[in-house]
Amino acid sequence: MQVHFLGTGAGLPSKDRNVTSIVLDLLQERNALWMFDCGEATQHQILHTSIKPKKIEKIFITHLHGDHIFGLPGMLSSRSFQGGEDPVTIYGPIGTKQFIETSLTVSQSRLSYPIIIKELKEGVIYEDDQFSVAVKKLDHAIDSFGFRIDEKDSPGPLLVDKLKEEGITPGPIYRQFKTEETVELPNGNTVQSKDYIGEPKKGKSVAILGDTRVHEAYISFITHVDLLVHEATFSEELEELAYDYYHSTTTEVAKLAKRAHIKGLVLTHISSRFQSDEVAQLLSEAKQYFDNTVIAHDFYSTTIK
Amino acid sequence: MQVHFLGTGAGLPSKDRNVTSIVLDLLQERNALWMFDCGEATQHQILHTSIKPKKIEKIFITHLHGDHIFGLPGMLSSRSFQGGEDPVTIYGPIGTKQFIETSLTVSQSRLSYPIIIKELKEGVIYEDDQFSVAVKKLDHAIDSFGFRIDEKDSPGPLLVDKLKEEGITPGPIYRQFKTEETVELPNGNTVQSKDYIGEPKKGKSVAILGDTRVHEAYISFITHVDLLVHEATFSEELEELAYDYYHSTTTEVAKLAKRAHIKGLVLTHISSRFQSDEVAQLLSEAKQYFDNTVIAHDFYSTTIK
Repeated sequence: MQVHFLGTGAGLPSKDRNVTSIVLDLLQERNALWMFDCGEATQHQILHTSIKPKKIEKIFITHLHGDHIFGLPGMLSSRSFQGGEDPVTIYGPIGTKQFIETSLTVSQSRLSYPIIIKELKEGVIYEDDQFSVAVKKLDHAIDSFGFRIDEKDSPGPLLVDKLKEEGITPGPIYRQFKTEETVELPNGNTVQSKDYIGEPKKGKSVAILGDTRVHEAYISFITHVDLLVHEATFSEELEELAYDYYHSTTTEVAKLAKRAHIKGLVLTHISSRFQSDEVAQLLSEAKQYFDNTVIAHDFYSTTIK
Repeated sequence: MQVHFLGTGAGLPSKDRNVTSIVLDLLQERNALWMFDCGEATQHQILHTSIKPKKIEKIFITHLHGDHIFGLPGMLSSRSFQGGEDPVTIYGPIGTKQFIETSLTVSQSRLSYPIIIKELKEGVIYEDDQFSVAVKKLDHAIDSFGFRIDEKDSPGPLLVDKLKEEGITPGPIYRQFKTEETVELPNGNTVQSKDYIGEPKKGKSVAILGDTRVHEAYISFITHVDLLVHEATFSEELEELAYDYYHSTTTEVAKLAKRAHIKGLVLTHISSRFQSDEVAQLLSEAKQYFDNTVIAHDFYSTTIK
């Protein structure tokens, strides 16, 4: 599981940072990419990466501000141009459907693949045998949502050495240890499968929140995630401005991260008022409260281990 | 009068060429910029120029394909962010209004300036004492339009030397030669103003056409323009493909240019199938029929003299 940051700026593009888009890379887990937000020129950013739009399976929109959605019609159209065939499911606030349908209809864009648009509400919005996605409403000037993606634990490995020690030789019987609770051996004895299966592998978890003020109420939603991606539009000293504009500061988020016992924090959606030489200062503000913090830049990638 | 090419590619962005946008620079003539089409990431291209979005007075949309309009909501929003206050008039095909209004409403973008959206029809769509803009419907898969912009001739200069020779010395009387048909001199004689005014300065003209097949019927519309900006999505040998997709080839456009007696030709909307080392070939195809041809690249600018 990897996270790629395609755009890490706030409000409008600058030479340093494009507007928001994040890709959760599940190529290893399910040969798919999940995109979070799609600001204008996200498809242009993709040109500079190895990301293949046809691998995008789901798109999650945190909120409908232009810097998070204006790249969506172009990205969907180009995915079609490039021969994408698999369906894409798009999850977004009320209005997502109207924006996409109007853009595609007016431009007479006929996609080569189906899109399914689901408007967001709180709770678990998606679940299969690998992943679940939960949604929480945030505190922003416009409806804004956070997503928590939990990978399910995967079953432990078959303890082959132990099986062999007990004279159970490789063959079709090995499969029964993975699918049945008990297995009858050739000698007539019945054993418990779980005694021959190792520890389950813990699934990874990541939370990606849209634009928001920081709130205590988010702690239970993000608790113990391996990675939290959170906006930090402003620096510590601009707390009042952050509040007025429904955004967060570096230190507010770092304190939240600490209280939620998360493992790693990536701050993004950085205001263009901060020049690149001021990023170190933003980082040190956050690290006072939560050490394992990174300030994202465009094309920053991290692997969740 | 200058023309700046912000995006010169066809269909979808590539690393070499962005999708279409052209700026007619009338800063000297009226302290304003007129934009033609606004593909995705046009505002990003502008970041690499000295163009000021707040100077954009009019936006003309040739047709509603995504590669010509998906940058519009972001550009309008950023113009607001940057403190634009003067109104912008947008001329585009039916659907332009729906696309802009939906994008701005859904994203809750409140612009700091008024926009006026006028849907296109053939004929003269704008005229003031400096410029007129005429529109012609083209032959494309979707409603597509061409624009011809004519600057009006400006009055010739006052022939000061001739006035002095005849003893008419500088003073408020000089203004009368510009505003009145006849002027009564201090000695009681009456003279014709036109005898003391030089040759009028011929206005410039430029035609900017949207995606289209080439047609004989365009000749009268573009006749004698100083500059024709025309798409050439395909090379000479791909004439059939060009026809099937309602586009033009290099040579088709060059032949049209010759027959219309225009002065200069810029070809744009170049398919991404052509690598940068193939541009010379495209150019030589066109030059067989019309020598004063340029193949535009992103950030190419030309002055109309």
